[in-house]
Parts: sequence; C-alpha cells; structure tokens
Amino acid sequence: MKLLDGGRAPNPRRVRIFMAEKGIEIPLEQVDITKAEHKTEEFTALNPVQRIPVLILDDGTAIGEVSAICRYFEETRPEPPLLGVDALDKATVDMWNSRLQMHLLIPVAQVFRHAHPAMAEMEKPQIAEWSEANRPRVMEALRWLNDRLSKSAFVAGDRFSIADITAMVAIDFLKPARLAVPEDHTALLAWYDKVRARPSYKA
Amino acid sequence: MKLLDGGRAPNPRRVRIFMAEKGIEIPLEQVDITKAEHKTEEFTALNPVQRIPVLILDDGTAIGEVSAICRYFEETRPEPPLLGVDALDKATVDMWNSRLQMHLLIPVAQVFRHAHPAMAEMEKPQIAEWSEANRPRVMEALRWLNDRLSKSAFVAGDRFSIADITAMVAIDFLKPARLAVPEDHTALLAWYDKVRARPSYKA
Repeated sequence: MKLLDGGRAPNPRRVRIFMAEKGIEIPLEQVDITKAEHKTEEFTALNPVQRIPVLILDDGTAIGEVSAICRYFEETRPEPPLLGVDALDKATVDMWNSRLQMHLLIPVAQVFRHAHPAMAEMEKPQIAEWSEANRPRVMEALRWLNDRLSKSAFVAGDRFSIADITAMVAIDFLKPARLAVPEDHTALLAWYDKVRARPSYKA
Repeated sequence: MKLLDGGRAPNPRRVRIFMAEKGIEIPLEQVDITKAEHKTEEFTALNPVQRIPVLILDDGTAIGEVSAICRYFEETRPEPPLLGVDALDKATVDMWNSRLQMHLLIPVAQVFRHAHPAMAEMEKPQIAEWSEANRPRVMEALRWLNDRLSKSAFVAGDRFSIADITAMVAIDFLKPARLAVPEDHTALLAWYDKVRARPSYKA
C-alpha cells in the first residue's frame, strides 16, 4: 500500500493527518502538481479527475478522494474512530465534515486559486470576481464554526473526528488566501490551539 | 421523523431517491427557497448553512447535508445497501459519489446558478465568466463517466448505489443548465435509461 501524496496541498494533508491519528504508516510517493505530474497519462489512468491524494492498494487498486481513502482506513483500522461510532454520531460527523468542506475549505480554496499569482498557471481562467465573491462565504463559515465550538469540545462533539481535520486544514489555508480568523472568534481560536498541539498536526 | 424538503432542487431529490430505494416513508415538509424560507431565524437554528434538505429526528435533532442524512438512513435501515458492503466497496462507492458531486453536480450547478435569469436573486453576484468556466469541466466529467459506465453496470460497480443517485440527479440538472450528454456517450445514455426506469426516479 502507498499514498500518492502532494506536499503542502490541503487534501493530501487531510489524509496524512487522518493516518497519523490512527497510527498508519505507509510509503508516501510525491506527485509534483507544479510539474503537472497529476496530468500524465499514467496518473490519469489511476484517477480520471487528476487529483491527489490517491491510495494504491497492494493489488494496484487506486482509491481517490479524501473521504473514500479515509473510509477505507476507518473500515480496516477502526481505532481510534474518526468517522463516528453509532448511527447518529456517524451522521453528525459526516454533517460537520461536509459543511466544512463545502462552506469553508472549498470557498477558501476559491479565494486563493482565483486571486493568487502562483495559481495563474493552475487555475484557468482566474476570475478575480469569483475570488472576491467567496470571501464573505468564508467569513460566514468562520462565524458558525466559532458558534459551534463555543458549545462543543470538538467540531462534531466530544471526540476528535475527521471534521476537526477538515477544519484545521481549512484554517491553515486562510493564510495563503490572505484571510484570517477574527480575533473575537475566541472559541474557534482556543480549539485551534488545542488541535494544533496534537502530534498529527505536523503530518 | 420528517424531512425538510424542497421540491425540484437537486439535493432534496437525492435524499428522496435514497429513501425510495430503501422503502423509507416519512413526512415531507416543503421549505420554499424562492420565498427565502431557508433564511429565517427558525430554519437557521436548525441548519446554520441555510440549506435543504434537513432531517428532523423525533427528539428534534436536525441533520443537514445529503451525505449525512443518507448515512443515518444506511445505519438505521441497512437494506438494500446503498453505501457499499465491505471496506473496498464502501471506499469505491464513496470515491465515485464524491467525484460526481465535486466534478459533475457542483460544476453543473455553477453553470446554472451563474447564468440563469431565474437565479439572479439567489446567486449574488452572478458571474457569467464563472458559469462559462464550468462548462468544459462538466463535459470532461461526462467523458470519464461515460468511460466508467462502458466498463461497469452501475457507477460504483455491479450494484446500484448512492453514486448512481448523484449521477442521475446531475444528468437531469443538465437541462436547466442548457447542457446535454453528447450523443456518442452511448454507455452513459444506456445507463441513464436503465436508472430512469427505476420507481425511485420519480421521487
């Protein structure tokens, strides 16, 4: 088994943190997207949507998409559970993780990709107005995330889960997007200090 | 239990089809997004991201996000399985469902929302260039989906799954976005005829 990985990009990092929380160690193989290594014929045969990360099983089966890779790990290495433990908990974890992906991580990515000069080659066309349109969406998401964390130890409840991983990676992605958590979002900032202290944060 | 539903919108329909496949019948309560009923204080307390559908459990617990609602149903009513049956199958279903959501359904929605006059009030600002930028992404997704369906009876393998539901809803959404499946995508068109013949299609 090995992971086709991609350094600092948010999606590979989500999987690496998930693996670190479960104590899963497998070889990481770097795919350099700045050299368009994810657009080669060989890579496209593994993943038609040309995205990293991709998990390669021992028989050569390729699994793409963060949620699918994490699902595979959760099923084959259940402890500690990161996708919830019963019907309601699993649904709650999925709800917060989906919300954070759709309404925080993706909007932050849009702000970044459609405005940052370093993305001019990767994101064509870059549309400055679309970057701008996503800024208020990010700030709105930070508001409800702060509200949630003022009532809950972790994003999806009392236990660290994949929703915290998506949230921490999204928060780290604010900086290259030239955004920041407002100082009065004290619950969010306290949670961030807490999750950043976990060993998995460095993954 | 009841579902806060929303007529023809793609996401509530994904959940209704999922329920129909499992034989789950619960009351549907319509939320009229054209009257901004999803932006009221009452609705926002149930779902801070102001989206339908929302599943309300008997104790009042609100579950938002299509994938989370479907997860809850899969856990509480396992038959027939729509999210996969073992580790690899579950990961495969999740992979195709995520791909279809991220690279087909969402791009179709962007084409529609940023160009259609009926969305001028809902999507502010409407950015025509962003609509246009998503058209080739949709056509690219239709290409790999057709390729996949030339080798597989259903999107994620031999069994109908949530990935087929996301795909069929996305294909139906092409029309209001003024897009269409190219005629030479014969595997995709044959699959579409097959899934449209299922009773759940009318849900």
